[in-house]
Amino acid sequence: MKHLLTTKELTRDEAELILDVTEQMAEAVTGREVPKLPALRGRTVVNLFFEDSTRTRTSFETAAKRLSADVVNFAAKTSSVNKGESLRDTALTLQAMGADAVVIRHPAAGAPQRLTEWIDGAVLNAGDGTHAHPTQALLDAYTMKQRLGAVEGRTVAIVGDILHSRVARSNVWLLSKLGANVRLVGPPTLLPKDIGDWPVEVEYDLDASLKDVDAIMMLRVQRERMHAAFFPTANEYARLYGLDERRLALLPDHAIVMHPGPMNRGMEIAATVADSPRATITEQVTNGVWVRMAVLYLLLTNGEAR
Amino acid sequence: MKHLLTTKELTRDEAELILDVTEQMAEAVTGREVPKLPALRGRTVVNLFFEDSTRTRTSFETAAKRLSADVVNFAAKTSSVNKGESLRDTALTLQAMGADAVVIRHPAAGAPQRLTEWIDGAVLNAGDGTHAHPTQALLDAYTMKQRLGAVEGRTVAIVGDILHSRVARSNVWLLSKLGANVRLVGPPTLLPKDIGDWPVEVEYDLDASLKDVDAIMMLRVQRERMHAAFFPTANEYARLYGLDERRLALLPDHAIVMHPGPMNRGMEIAATVADSPRATITEQVTNGVWVRMAVLYLLLTNGEAR
Amino acid sequence: MKHLLTTKELTRDEAELILDVTEQMAEAVTGREVPKLPALRGRTVVNLFFEDSTRTRTSFETAAKRLSADVVNFAAKTSSVNKGESLRDTALTLQAMGADAVVIRHPAAGAPQRLTEWIDGAVLNAGDGTHAHPTQALLDAYTMKQRLGAVEGRTVAIVGDILHSRVARSNVWLLSKLGANVRLVGPPTLLPKDIGDWPVEVEYDLDASLKDVDAIMMLRVQRERMHAAFFPTANEYARLYGLDERRLALLPDHAIVMHPGPMNRGMEIAATVADSPRATITEQVTNGVWVRMAVLYLLLTNGEAR
Repeated sequence: MKHLLTTKELTRDEAELILDVTEQMAEAVTGREVPKLPALRGRTVVNLFFEDSTRTRTSFETAAKRLSADVVNFAAKTSSVNKGESLRDTALTLQAMGADAVVIRHPAAGAPQRLTEWIDGAVLNAGDGTHAHPTQALLDAYTMKQRLGAVEGRTVAIVGDILHSRVARSNVWLLSKLGANVRLVGPPTLLPKDIGDWPVEVEYDLDASLKDVDAIMMLRVQRERMHAAFFPTANEYARLYGLDERRLALLPDHAIVMHPGPMNRGMEIAATVADSPRATITEQVTNGVWVRMAVLYLLLTNGEAR
Repeated sequence: MKHLLTTKELTRDEAELILDVTEQMAEAVTGREVPKLPALRGRTVVNLFFEDSTRTRTSFETAAKRLSADVVNFAAKTSSVNKGESLRDTALTLQAMGADAVVIRHPAAGAPQRLTEWIDGAVLNAGDGTHAHPTQALLDAYTMKQRLGAVEGRTVAIVGDILHSRVARSNVWLLSKLGANVRLVGPPTLLPKDIGDWPVEVEYDLDASLKDVDAIMMLRVQRERMHAAFFPTANEYARLYGLDERRLALLPDHAIVMHPGPMNRGMEIAATVADSPRATITEQVTNGVWVRMAVLYLLLTNGEAR
Repeated sequence: MKHLLTTKELTRDEAELILDVTEQMAEAVTGREVPKLPALRGRTVVNLFFEDSTRTRTSFETAAKRLSADVVNFAAKTSSVNKGESLRDTALTLQAMGADAVVIRHPAAGAPQRLTEWIDGAVLNAGDGTHAHPTQALLDAYTMKQRLGAVEGRTVAIVGDILHSRVARSNVWLLSKLGANVRLVGPPTLLPKDIGDWPVEVEYDLDASLKDVDAIMMLRVQRERMHAAFFPTANEYARLYGLDERRLALLPDHAIVMHPGPMNRGMEIAATVADSPRATITEQVTNGVWVRMAVLYLLLTNGEAR
């Protein structure tokens, strides 16, 4: 592995290696007096964010600092990108400054892939358009492994606006590769047209999807898109595709409730469900730091220093 | 001490411990070849700022770095808070990422208190609405101790817009607890209604307040509020409540002039007064770093490593 | 040297010392397992930027971190500067917080000079109005030394909007001091009125300037200024003052093509020229980190630790 662009391109062995190293990272750091590892001392990790995402940026920044790397935040909004500089020239500049890794978030699908043409260092996709968000899927898989013992053989329902969700796409490819049974649940207007080619089941009725799942993943609703998809109100969406207490009771007892955050409480997920012990939402955030440590570590050391 | 929310809740012993450790911090770092202490190595301090305040944020950031902590700036304006995430979910996210301390500035009084319900780490109030700004009061007390030998028995006039000032409130509680005689001076329209319950004297005439004070603290005027309080012009405010050369001459010779910054020179304080040797304004800034080091140290180590 | 404000004030010996230390920095760090030096451990470098410039800020930040300094980014736009605080009070605040060096970018010529009146630490000019940008000129000189063997005796054409360019001014003084023959090329409307006092040749016709140069430095066009200078379109500017393939062929074979970035590809420089092996644009970026390391090191240690 040189870059992390999508989960679709990841082999099963690579994905499992990342999840194994994630576990090692969590164990190596948790409970230590000084919860840092020296592995990336002197390395420079650049956060190149063309969209605001304090959560994801902070998670990568924390992960890099726990590995003793230097972190530079390059907010593209306030940079020379505003003066019309191309992505390519920005990439060549970061490369020339000695960036060992570039973590990129960009509104255009494929931007991280393009970056790899110009950068010798590692490129980590932190979300590109509606295309991919691989570390989110990896932290979701890791959370399932922890809570359900394994991903293999488990049934996962991903619910909501699949069409616009890079989280959904990355999970589809990763979880199916790891042997899970993936079911997409949403209104036809919010399902992609090419879904016939995906390794998934499709279901339109949420109630009918609940009784046999091991994990249910509620996607964030983007309000402006909900209207375009013919949901006149938040209540209407919640009624059809929100996870409330009634639906929680329809899930198997062992099933977990996942959400990538930030949540719209009362819309795709009821507040009481988000706060129930079956929700893994804050564990997902914690696991995000371990996963990003693992990925940074593997890409920047080629695992040599292990 | 687990958090630092207000000076009102601080016991006198706790306040004096903080001031003692502040002095130790200043001594431990000043003049050293490498002016850093290893006390918080591997700890993560998050600056969670819902209002811009580069001065206060920079002071906390510098303090944390001098203690070898890792600092993550989480500007809430550009974060998922914009996507409607609640303070609670933001708190749970930071908690899940492993924040050992959260330094919060928020426009709503009580926000830091609420944060403590959701965060295991230490919460440090860096200013909440018009409610409290405890590290500012602590650095003011430390500055008085240095310049006047003690806080006990000294008379301090706090002048200006008391009504909207968290700095005034935090100083009232801290300085009176430490044995100072606190006098509030301002127009009736800028004094709080419940001031009868505060451990203070009240005075409306600035000239009459000057002859016996050991320290005079000029509050920053917020221009939009000045108009609402019936001061038609900056000159009018300066004439009634500004500290100019004439009034400086009415103070006892040993009295010091304080201001929390940033100043409106020519309004609440004349430029020549701000630059006089009796002004402690830059010392207050320096002491702010030592006080914040002390508080971070005490809250994050429970003083164990001392 | 206590500060770095302009190249005009630098002696030739000082400039050559900086270039020598730049080379040492590059050698000391390149290829090392941990590419950092401990020279500035515990020192605080503040980036005080009154204009956005992620590129320059990132270069200084990277340089400071490679020397193990702590870096605080103080974006003046979101700071108390907005509340009307003067540059002087901001300076006194940073001084009081213990800044060992302040890197300042400011729209007003002379702001870094003023800063030195209030700050004991080192002041590094990262660009002030149309006045000076000394580290850019130093990295350009270093790039010429590397590529052309020396600056002495070489002929350098600087092309474009000289009038508004701090890069041009800083290069004029530095390169002429180092023995280069400097030629300014641009339309009369974009040349300064006092140019008769500068140690330069002036040429209006780009084609006529090409055949004997060792280096050609293309300045960034600022679109709004181009119109004011009577260039109706980008094409018109490119036709008269852009470096395209035809003009590249008119240069001597050994001549290099420089640009301070960010580029307007297709305007002052054709995309194919920017990407040709004769262009040094990314080397300039790399050298910028080494030069800034050298300057920070020399100013903060007085070269004592060498």
